[in-house]
Amino acid sequence: MKRTLIILILCIFTTTISFSQNILKSDYLNISKKMIDLALSEGKAYEMLRELCFNVGPRLTGSPAAAAAVEWGRQALIKSQADSVFLQDVMVPHWVRGDIETATLLNLPTLGTIDLTVCALGRSVGTPETGVTGDVIEVKDFDELKAMGEKVKGKIVFYNRPMDPKKRNTFMAYSGAVDQRGAGAIEAAKLGAVAVLVRSMTTRLDDVPHTGAMREYEEGVRKIPAAAISTVDANLLSHVLKTGERVSVNLKLSCKTLPDVLSANVIGEIIGIELPDEVILLGGHLDSWDKGHGAHDDGSGCVQSIEALRLIKAMGLKPKRTIRAVLFMNEENGVRGGQAYADSVGQSGPKHIVAIESDRGGFTPRGLTIKAEPGSPELQSISKWSYLFEGIDADKFISGYGGVDISPLEPFGTLLMGLSVDPHRYFDYHHSDNDTFDKVNERELELGAVVMAMMSYVLAMEGI
Amino acid sequence: MKRTLIILILCIFTTTISFSQNILKSDYLNISKKMIDLALSEGKAYEMLRELCFNVGPRLTGSPAAAAAVEWGRQALIKSQADSVFLQDVMVPHWVRGDIETATLLNLPTLGTIDLTVCALGRSVGTPETGVTGDVIEVKDFDELKAMGEKVKGKIVFYNRPMDPKKRNTFMAYSGAVDQRGAGAIEAAKLGAVAVLVRSMTTRLDDVPHTGAMREYEEGVRKIPAAAISTVDANLLSHVLKTGERVSVNLKLSCKTLPDVLSANVIGEIIGIELPDEVILLGGHLDSWDKGHGAHDDGSGCVQSIEALRLIKAMGLKPKRTIRAVLFMNEENGVRGGQAYADSVGQSGPKHIVAIESDRGGFTPRGLTIKAEPGSPELQSISKWSYLFEGIDADKFISGYGGVDISPLEPFGTLLMGLSVDPHRYFDYHHSDNDTFDKVNERELELGAVVMAMMSYVLAMEGI
Repeated sequence: MKRTLIILILCIFTTTISFSQNILKSDYLNISKKMIDLALSEGKAYEMLRELCFNVGPRLTGSPAAAAAVEWGRQALIKSQADSVFLQDVMVPHWVRGDIETATLLNLPTLGTIDLTVCALGRSVGTPETGVTGDVIEVKDFDELKAMGEKVKGKIVFYNRPMDPKKRNTFMAYSGAVDQRGAGAIEAAKLGAVAVLVRSMTTRLDDVPHTGAMREYEEGVRKIPAAAISTVDANLLSHVLKTGERVSVNLKLSCKTLPDVLSANVIGEIIGIELPDEVILLGGHLDSWDKGHGAHDDGSGCVQSIEALRLIKAMGLKPKRTIRAVLFMNEENGVRGGQAYADSVGQSGPKHIVAIESDRGGFTPRGLTIKAEPGSPELQSISKWSYLFEGIDADKFISGYGGVDISPLEPFGTLLMGLSVDPHRYFDYHHSDNDTFDKVNERELELGAVVMAMMSYVLAMEGI
Repeated sequence: MKRTLIILILCIFTTTISFSQNILKSDYLNISKKMIDLALSEGKAYEMLRELCFNVGPRLTGSPAAAAAVEWGRQALIKSQADSVFLQDVMVPHWVRGDIETATLLNLPTLGTIDLTVCALGRSVGTPETGVTGDVIEVKDFDELKAMGEKVKGKIVFYNRPMDPKKRNTFMAYSGAVDQRGAGAIEAAKLGAVAVLVRSMTTRLDDVPHTGAMREYEEGVRKIPAAAISTVDANLLSHVLKTGERVSVNLKLSCKTLPDVLSANVIGEIIGIELPDEVILLGGHLDSWDKGHGAHDDGSGCVQSIEALRLIKAMGLKPKRTIRAVLFMNEENGVRGGQAYADSVGQSGPKHIVAIESDRGGFTPRGLTIKAEPGSPELQSISKWSYLFEGIDADKFISGYGGVDISPLEPFGTLLMGLSVDPHRYFDYHHSDNDTFDKVNERELELGAVVMAMMSYVLAMEGI
């Protein structure tokens, strides 16, 4: 009987909770439905992205276009009826690609001379005008490189480990390969290599190089030129190497690093009506590589953050806490904007409860990744809102990564979240000339903005 | 105590069931995981699609390219190690577009003469060489048309009701608008109109007309020319009409219907080792419109059906029942292939237990739609396999539509299912020059093939 009693009490308790939650649930659900309707029928994210892609274009940190992007972002936030819009100064690195980037396969006995499709990696040093010439050795990873020891001296090291296509999520495949781009030049330089070529980080076979950043060199390591090679030409180069012929490449890069310049994060906010000093942050990064339009990476995250504020205002919602959109400068080659923002918040700035970053492309949203352990109270607390996104199939709330720009906020107790999207196409476009406006679908982009808007609104009302 | 006892019995019962199911579950789950690995690393669907798009191209029913597609399909099935490959003769309609399709806005007081972007609707009659000229009247639906009564006589009717962007699923938006294309000419002809222009069925604003089929005319209704107009020019035309100026259009179409020709469905199968006369059918349609490559519609469904057989064979699986891939001819303007196939199966052919069609584009699969009532035993029976697709987020099994080509099988007791995919981009491309190979992503296409392969394999082993 005691057991029956416990069951009975549990039943009553559950019913009561369900009831009070149901009222709340249906209110928020109605808001969510209306917001989806509004976004799909009168959304502005796509037009904002068109402006950014065509009027500003690619916007490498420190470039005139990056400055134009700051002003674009400021005006877009004002137009979106943010209560307050302001800039936050940031000193940023100023790396430039220059006009020359060539790699020539020299004097093959059978094929003659072949031009390879390459581009400098971000932060790479340039070559002398006549280029750097060396015999090529191919490796799959740093272990293989180190095992070669002395043989590396004077060579061009060719990193050719593809992204693993078997990974269900392409971001996992990226994580498993990107060490070659990040640290490849540094490790090769330590062994006396004269340059490196790195297989482009893409799941496609294409003839477009995909650039991206290298890590900072450690003190005392001589800097060597580093370039990405298209996957088509990586396969060609690997094929030629398998013939056993001696393979020499001449690499010419005119890239260089100029002195740091002043730039800015762009910030707009809806000020909370009850707890203005508690902040829910939405963000993307305003800089891009100097390839394509930076449409998916990360024009999409920027316009979604702005659009989220606009949707909340357009619906006449009055959040209790402050919702802030931050367009971070310099995610791609330094994270100076993210760091400067976190520094300014520090221990004494407004309390940042949650930060949500969109930096995985403007594809169909699937849910959110939350930087909290599976089963943790934080994850459970956030996950209870997933029902708001069932209607658009974006209700997968799982433990995972937040975002690069918001990471420096973690030490201050901010819960980090990332907009999770359909992952298959991202690395087709990423950091290359393929990342153009036409690759973005208006509906997919808008629905991502809705997830950010609705999630930030609920958290601004209810906390975590 | 009686209640406690019941709870206890239920607990024991549940545990027993879970246990025996777990063994089965893990076996199939392992097969599913291996198949996903294989498809993502060594899939052939994308290369098959490349061949179909570039070597065969668009393949309107009755055209030489449609004949080439039949031979392509036959060879692709043989190469995929199907146990048996054969053709099924079908007489099909032979509508041709011809070289001329223009619509000219005539002599506007302010704008002069403007060319509009149009294309004939499938099955439309042509115009005389000098075209058909008439004043334009815009309507949103048939009620509005009928209310105009006598005024329709001698006019060109312009149907301009957009697909509803608020629909979460674009296929619902399509369903809500496509009556204008399907029956617009017929309804207008009944009231004495001389031609119709129909707003293109797309969720985008673009300057590309999206063609598609009209319904058959009823007996005794005079046939009038019908064309799709791009959404950009539909907006322009509507704008001009709002000025109150008299708006005349001259429409020239050289399309016509030739006598029926012989064509074929292409069929390949893995013969079941225990119950060869029970069939699980996989299908897509081999014909396309004569625009773009017919890459998503429905080259994708064809190569996924072939790839599904190939994956099952490559894994060395031996299904108990027969799994058959059918590339149906003439879905777009007649469904003759689907009808002929069902006729041949009839009451006496092999028992078709389930048919799964892929005809919503080669996008990321989300699950399956099953033509059964929510909560029905059929839906429950199929849904218990959704766990096999959790790892690729394709586990939404819901009540819904099967497919056009497999619909004629329904009277024979076949359970119909459709591959459900991410829906947002489909109508960007559908029936237009935009539907090209480069719009398809290899991973997304392959994962759809896996869902078809694994689902058909499990059903071939377990029945429903």
